[in-house]
Amino acid sequence: MAETPAAGVAEAVMAEGTLAASLFDALRRDGLDEPGVTRDPYGPGEQRAHATATAAAERLGLRVERDFAANTYMTLPGRDAGAPRVVVGSHLDSVPHGGNFDGAAGVVAGLVAVAALKRLGLAPRCDVTVMAVRAEESVWFQVSYVGSRSALGSLPDGALEAKRIDTGRTLAEHMAECGGDPDAVRARRRFLEPSKLRAFLELHIEQAPSLVEDGKPLAVCTGIPGNFRYPEARIEGRNEHVGLPRRFRRDAAMAGADFAMVLDRVWEEHEARSVPMAATLGRFHTDAALHGMTFVPGLFHFSLDVRAYDEAVLAGLDRRVDGIVAEVEGRRGVRFHLGRKARAAVGAVDPAIRASLLAGARALGLPPAELGSPASHDAAAFAEAGVPMGMLFVRNRNGSHNPDEAMELDDFLQATSVLALWLVENACGG
Amino acid sequence: MAETPAAGVAEAVMAEGTLAASLFDALRRDGLDEPGVTRDPYGPGEQRAHATATAAAERLGLRVERDFAANTYMTLPGRDAGAPRVVVGSHLDSVPHGGNFDGAAGVVAGLVAVAALKRLGLAPRCDVTVMAVRAEESVWFQVSYVGSRSALGSLPDGALEAKRIDTGRTLAEHMAECGGDPDAVRARRRFLEPSKLRAFLELHIEQAPSLVEDGKPLAVCTGIPGNFRYPEARIEGRNEHVGLPRRFRRDAAMAGADFAMVLDRVWEEHEARSVPMAATLGRFHTDAALHGMTFVPGLFHFSLDVRAYDEAVLAGLDRRVDGIVAEVEGRRGVRFHLGRKARAAVGAVDPAIRASLLAGARALGLPPAELGSPASHDAAAFAEAGVPMGMLFVRNRNGSHNPDEAMELDDFLQATSVLALWLVENACGG
Repeated sequence: MAETPAAGVAEAVMAEGTLAASLFDALRRDGLDEPGVTRDPYGPGEQRAHATATAAAERLGLRVERDFAANTYMTLPGRDAGAPRVVVGSHLDSVPHGGNFDGAAGVVAGLVAVAALKRLGLAPRCDVTVMAVRAEESVWFQVSYVGSRSALGSLPDGALEAKRIDTGRTLAEHMAECGGDPDAVRARRRFLEPSKLRAFLELHIEQAPSLVEDGKPLAVCTGIPGNFRYPEARIEGRNEHVGLPRRFRRDAAMAGADFAMVLDRVWEEHEARSVPMAATLGRFHTDAALHGMTFVPGLFHFSLDVRAYDEAVLAGLDRRVDGIVAEVEGRRGVRFHLGRKARAAVGAVDPAIRASLLAGARALGLPPAELGSPASHDAAAFAEAGVPMGMLFVRNRNGSHNPDEAMELDDFLQATSVLALWLVENACGG
Repeated sequence: MAETPAAGVAEAVMAEGTLAASLFDALRRDGLDEPGVTRDPYGPGEQRAHATATAAAERLGLRVERDFAANTYMTLPGRDAGAPRVVVGSHLDSVPHGGNFDGAAGVVAGLVAVAALKRLGLAPRCDVTVMAVRAEESVWFQVSYVGSRSALGSLPDGALEAKRIDTGRTLAEHMAECGGDPDAVRARRRFLEPSKLRAFLELHIEQAPSLVEDGKPLAVCTGIPGNFRYPEARIEGRNEHVGLPRRFRRDAAMAGADFAMVLDRVWEEHEARSVPMAATLGRFHTDAALHGMTFVPGLFHFSLDVRAYDEAVLAGLDRRVDGIVAEVEGRRGVRFHLGRKARAAVGAVDPAIRASLLAGARALGLPPAELGSPASHDAAAFAEAGVPMGMLFVRNRNGSHNPDEAMELDDFLQATSVLALWLVENACGG
């Protein structure tokens, strides 16, 4: 028998290790697409993963529902049906040729935590719902938080018309094919009413090796960055002969390189002042139809993602980007066309949830750690809707969005214990 | 009647203005591929242009020959069949969607100059041969001076196995299809024996707007740059999640941008010291199969062309490139793989020909001008083989390798007069 309530929760979670391992195996098979896994949102990969989660929930005796956006909800009903419910979850889709854990770990953690509650014979006061969110990876539709914002009635106008980069078909078409109702999403009907949610909790692998550096298995999230993005920016210069002297050139690729290096220096300055941010030029390329070894490139394409944890820092970076554009245009005789701009607000973590998760880790004898999320997460969409939000990160050696994501099952189960303990203390009392 | 020999030559050339205009029109039709013209080397576009030149030569009563590489030679025979001959020419191929004049102008100039000699009733002492060269534009096979080096028996080993970027078929296959004999080229048989060539002269549009800036119709070339090239270089970093902090990143695109900017500063320094050079990253791109807005790019591709007029400067730049690679590798945690390297020697202009062309321009009442060639030209292959070489550039407003190349017929005819006067003075005397 466990000596403390925390130890009892830890034992119950450890006892579900087999469930966790078998779910991760099944999810890997669902998305197998060497190298790595591809669980394409509103496509076959994600569909198979939702079926896998649903089958597991049914074996656990949970109530399963789908919303207008085909998100899956797996609920352990509470004693008080009117009490604001707790939602635990993450997304099941992945990037193309990604790893098995980014997203899926949060859904498995929810199912394992609920299984542990049942094993402990605890009937929660309020509904505890495990949510498997759709289409979080914005590389596909270039839209953030599709599933979670659809559930909350906050998907922005036009998002349903976004085209998936590989199929060229719209989000609305994909959603309808997977049993969703894009018209209800477009009308901003809410499946989840924010005022009726007690909390949203998400467990996720860390997407950097900070916890590996620090030798800690998990961390409590201090905040999720907001971002602004230009998915399809381009630079127009002039296509010219390779021998053209420097003073005559309007080299679009050199302008892109110049822009990147100035932005990198801005990042370096922020880092020196310990102001966290990130800037990524994920696509950064001359035009494949026009470029060649003996041409000065006249056209250059890029995508830009800039993120920070503070709205004021983000706004400052937004102005800096405009300034760099003007500077490089002046210096290189080119024109930038930044194109469509997307934004996501900074996701604030609820201070009480953060404190309580940290206390839980201590009670479980785990080394306490806190970490700003480098990445965006569905939890930010809940925070934006006013739902108290908290997150846990699990140690991972090899970054995410690649086939080498490496999460140890022990680390995962320890983090899941923190989650389960929070549920015991906050959803199962009185 | 003309008052001086020079004025007589000028009149005879001007009288061939219609021939020149009709040849340019026909050549434009041969390659029409909106926007611009595509006269693909050892393909239909170049074939049609050789047929057009051949037909014009036959109308002028010239002797027409083809060599192993399917270059076309159109000869006004000299009185002394054993005297070293003069070759005048350039290439007929173009870049994809290029202009009508880069290359072709030199062939038309040769035909017009020979027509002028005939109009003047001059029988040259030695053979005067107009050469229409194959496959000069290295964007197609990534090999320099294919036609001219094949004629001189100096095409490097392996070049015949190079694949055309669009068809994927080898130079040998393309050459054979157009009536060439790749085995003879491979055996380095010479159609042109350098010791039996008196001179090679090439007229070409200027590929920068220097003459437009200076308000001069033409210039005598002072030298052709040598180059070193990496057609298929790449940078390997690590594909990671967009949220990864800066210190963990091995961003291949940022490394590419860093490399480009350092190289650009090297160029700036050379410019400040008035040492002419050029550096071009014609292909400069993240990997289309892997890149995306929410990834740190793990793979980056580029081509590099570095050129200068002095072998010592070129060797210094070669070392600098290696130094920059090491510097960026150290700074960004990436690996450069520069891949195959190609070189072309600096093309020295024969001092006597240069002086004589300049004197000819003065005798014709044209403003004298001299200019280093920004680009590579077939003439460099002749210089490398030890053939005395000279070049003339014609004013052009819009650069070359693009559909907007703009050469005025009057400027062209004035430059052709300089060429014709040189032939009168150097090939028709005694």
